[in-house]
Formats: sequence, structure tokens, C-alpha cells
Amino acid sequence: MEDQSQPDQASPEVQKRIQDSFDRQGLMAHLGATLTRIAPGRVHIELPGRPEVTQQHGYFHAGATSAIADSAGGYAAYTLFPEDTDVLTVEYKINLLAPAAGDRIEAVGTVLKSGRTLTVCQLEVFGVQDDGERKLVANGQQTLIRVKRPEQ
Amino acid sequence: MEDQSQPDQASPEVQKRIQDSFDRQGLMAHLGATLTRIAPGRVHIELPGRPEVTQQHGYFHAGATSAIADSAGGYAAYTLFPEDTDVLTVEYKINLLAPAAGDRIEAVGTVLKSGRTLTVCQLEVFGVQDDGERKLVANGQQTLIRVKRPEQ
Amino acid sequence: MEDQSQPDQASPEVQKRIQDSFDRQGLMAHLGATLTRIAPGRVHIELPGRPEVTQQHGYFHAGATSAIADSAGGYAAYTLFPEDTDVLTVEYKINLLAPAAGDRIEAVGTVLKSGRTLTVCQLEVFGVQDDGERKLVANGQQTLIRVKRPEQ
Amino acid sequence: MEDQSQPDQASPEVQKRIQDSFDRQGLMAHLGATLTRIAPGRVHIELPGRPEVTQQHGYFHAGATSAIADSAGGYAAYTLFPEDTDVLTVEYKINLLAPAAGDRIEAVGTVLKSGRTLTVCQLEVFGVQDDGERKLVANGQQTLIRVKRPEQ
Repeated sequence: MEDQSQPDQASPEVQKRIQDSFDRQGLMAHLGATLTRIAPGRVHIELPGRPEVTQQHGYFHAGATSAIADSAGGYAAYTLFPEDTDVLTVEYKINLLAPAAGDRIEAVGTVLKSGRTLTVCQLEVFGVQDDGERKLVANGQQTLIRVKRPEQ
Repeated sequence: MEDQSQPDQASPEVQKRIQDSFDRQGLMAHLGATLTRIAPGRVHIELPGRPEVTQQHGYFHAGATSAIADSAGGYAAYTLFPEDTDVLTVEYKINLLAPAAGDRIEAVGTVLKSGRTLTVCQLEVFGVQDDGERKLVANGQQTLIRVKRPEQ
Repeated sequence: MEDQSQPDQASPEVQKRIQDSFDRQGLMAHLGATLTRIAPGRVHIELPGRPEVTQQHGYFHAGATSAIADSAGGYAAYTLFPEDTDVLTVEYKINLLAPAAGDRIEAVGTVLKSGRTLTVCQLEVFGVQDDGERKLVANGQQTLIRVKRPEQ
Repeated sequence: MEDQSQPDQASPEVQKRIQDSFDRQGLMAHLGATLTRIAPGRVHIELPGRPEVTQQHGYFHAGATSAIADSAGGYAAYTLFPEDTDVLTVEYKINLLAPAAGDRIEAVGTVLKSGRTLTVCQLEVFGVQDDGERKLVANGQQTLIRVKRPEQ
């Protein structure tokens, strides 16, 4: 899926647009998530482990896993949209493949198909240890819609 | 789907088991979510609006919506499980039907099919105003698995 | 979900538009499926059991179950669309709740949310015995898009 | 996703087990689908275009696309199962990315995660022209369960 000819980073304008939008998502800050890579059609978001994001057994809660996966996919789509538009999630489906353990989790959203109205993304979430061990803990698929940005 | 002959509340033992598990979910407390109804095969969770749970336009973030939907479905399944078991989400799919606005959102998880190994739930999330107005903002479907509880 | 105030049948024009489209679906005829009810926002399709629609154990194949579910949802959406439009399935998710046994299966597509661009439907498939016994064998959720009909 | 170190073909025993099961699926023969590759954790199924598998615009019907995708994923899972077991689809979700045009369509089911009870597969369907052109027309994700084979 990864096209090696793609540049590793989106243009500064696109990066700024996405970072600004991310910074307005109160939930991302509240969870402690950060944007770690913004490439054309691919965005990474990381979330460090701490008690505030757990489920009943101490693993990352599926809601936290899904939240950063949803945002990563949404912003991956958004990297390919024109300036005066916005992105909304239509739906997504996610399989929780393994307990989401790790020092942090990393969500990767990748555009599979970019259309004029709808975009489809693949969502992956990895559990990552500080020693570099990395395991796929969730995999999903997401549909997004491009909308005109409302006048400010 | 709602069977009117069902009791409105689960037994005290089941309610306690679910409340205890919910209280161990760090994410639910961190978001500010509370369990508001525990009936056999149906669980309600509410989340008040505040800046910490928003997306970039000030609505409830899909990740917050999904987090309480996932927990509501999981606990709805869990109401029907035997004492020495646990519940894990296998996967879910959710459609975000409308901007999740409201003074609070309420997730309702309802068991559609309860099997020996797998349970399927319907997930609904409503945007609720303090004046009582109520609108369906998300609808989903979830698969859960019953596992033996690990020895403590 | 069923609004009892809804009329039981769509207008003759809408019924004709849908029956005509259905008749152009080579797959529905090849499977042996028929449209059995066209109400506003709700469409039923039936498929009789026969060896041509089975999986390896003699039950209805998930592909047959899904095919009539997808068409029932698509036409349910289409009952609410203006004359010069068409409907396309964006995506769907379906849980196969029980072996699809029965003298026939019946798919019911019901509009959950009808928007200007996107429509979301609930999909249900029942296994039905000639003696009237009826069992939910599959449950799903579908997203559809309204497109302008191409000039003929 | 494709692990190049994987053998290109499953063992003769596994191939025979899967071909035998496929041959018992009345629907696959009725549609005209054939198994074209059986590798460990990956199965390909092809379906030639003809009027019997179309939707109202002459493209492959989503039901036909899904039917071979579901079977490809199911058999991909089954290649990794022990002899005395069987495979059932729990659920799947599929995005129809583009009109399914082509001289034939090819479904590829690939195991993403193989567990003791549950297996998760990626589903891809390509529209293929006789001149070799190949386009992704559908992408999905599927959950399967391993069951003990019932005594014959």
C-alpha cells in the first residue's frame, strides 16, 4: 500500500492546516495524543500509555485506540483536499486484533481511494514498546466525505 | 428490538459487577462518562459536553462517541454472561449520522444476538439537550467475545 | 424503527421505477430473488432456497444473503430519492448471526437516515419456513450515495 | 501485507480440502466463479463477467463482488486451520470503491491475524481486463470463526 515514490512529508501549508485543525480537537489534547507524521495521504498519531486511557484490564481502551485511528484517517484524507474544504467521518469499522499493550500506541491512517466526494482510508494501530517492538493491535477501514468549509 | 417484557434493571449482582468493571476503565472517568442504566441486554452510558471531548468544530469527537458506544455494547453483552467470564470487543462499525451536538450524548448498547462464544450488539448514540430534545447521531454494530476470566 | 404512520406502499411511480431497476439486475433474476414489498424507506426482497444459492453445508451462502440485503437497502434508499437520480452502495457491514436456513430468506432494507448526499440503511435478513417460522439470520448497516442519473 | 517468504501454494492436502469445500458451494458454481490460487493464508477467486452477475447498470453486482470476496477470505483463513475444523464467516465490511467493471473480477482474501478462535482477513476485489489492466474495485475486512467439524 505504501508508495515509496511518495514524499515523506506534506507541504508546509498542508502540514500547518492539519496541525491547526488537530490543535482544535479538544479530545486529542485531553487524551495526550500528538501528530507525529503528515505525509500526502498518510498521517501518524501517537498516544502514550497512562491510566487515563485504559480499559478495565489496564490496556489501552478501544475508544482511545479508535479515537486516534479515526483522526489519523481523517487527516490522511485531508492532506489531499483543497484549501477551502473540510473533512467529516462518514463511518468506520475497526477490528481489535490483540490487547492494545505498549508504552504507546501509534495510529496510521492511509488513503486507499481518494474521490471527489468520498475518500476511503485504511486504519492501523500498533502497540509500540520503548525498545522498538511493534505489534499491530487494530485494523480498520473508514469512509470520509469532503465538504465545503463553512464561512467563518 | 426492545422487548417490553424485559425487566428494567439487571440484578444487583450484575449491576455491581458492571459498575465495578466500568470504574476500572480509566478512560471513562477521564472523559467524564457515567453508567446511567444497566438492564439485561441493554446498557446506557452518558457523556456531558465539555471542551475536552470535542473535535475541531466543537462537536463531540467521533472518538468520544465511539468510546462510550463501545463500552455500552460491551457491558450490554456482559449483563448476560456468567460470573467467571469477561468480555472483549472483537470489532465494531459505526456510522456518524449527524454532528454530535447536545448538552450531552447518550450511548445505548443493545444485545441483538447472544451466543455461547460471540455476541452481537446494536450501538446507538443520541445527542441530548437539557430541554429533552433527543436526536440519533450515530448508529453501529459490534461483535464481542466471551472469554474465561484470568485467575486473579 | 418502523414508523407505523408510514404508508404501506410507495406511490405507483416509485414502485415502477424500482421494479424496473430491479429487473435490470441480472444477478437478482439469476439467483431467483423477487421484490415483495416497496414501501417508502423500506423494501423487502425474497429468495427461495435451492442448491444454486448454497454454501458448503447446504445453508444459504453469505454471498446470496448479502446480495439481497444490499439490494433491499439500496432500493429502500431509492424510494426516497428524486426521479432523475440514481443510488450506489458506498459500503456495508453485515453480521451473519446464525446459519441461514429456511425454505426462503427475506431481506428487509430500512432507511435509518436520509441525507442529501448520503443515506444510511439497516439491513436485516430472516430465514423463513413455509409454516411461518421466522428467524433473524443476518443484520447489517449500509451507506449509500445519491448520484445524478447519467443522460441516456 | 504480502510476505514474500511465504510459499506460493498450500500443501496438496490443504488445496484438496479447500477445492472440495468450494465445489460444494452451489452459489460459486451458479455464479461461474473458480478458485485460481490457494496459498497459505491467501486465496484468489475469479468471476468472469456475464449478464447473470450484473446490477442495473451492467457492472458486476455488489452481491457478486461480495460473494467471491467472502469466499476468498473464508478459504484464506481455512488454509491455516487444522484438518478436523471448519470455518464460518462472523461478519464482514466492504467498501465498493469504483464500479466493478472488467472482463472478470478477482477476489483476494488475505489473513491479517490468525487466532485460535477468530481470524481476521483483508478482502480485495480487482476488476481485470483481458489486456491485463487491473483496478481495485472493492476493499473489505472480515472476521471468521473456527469451529469443530460436525461428525459426518
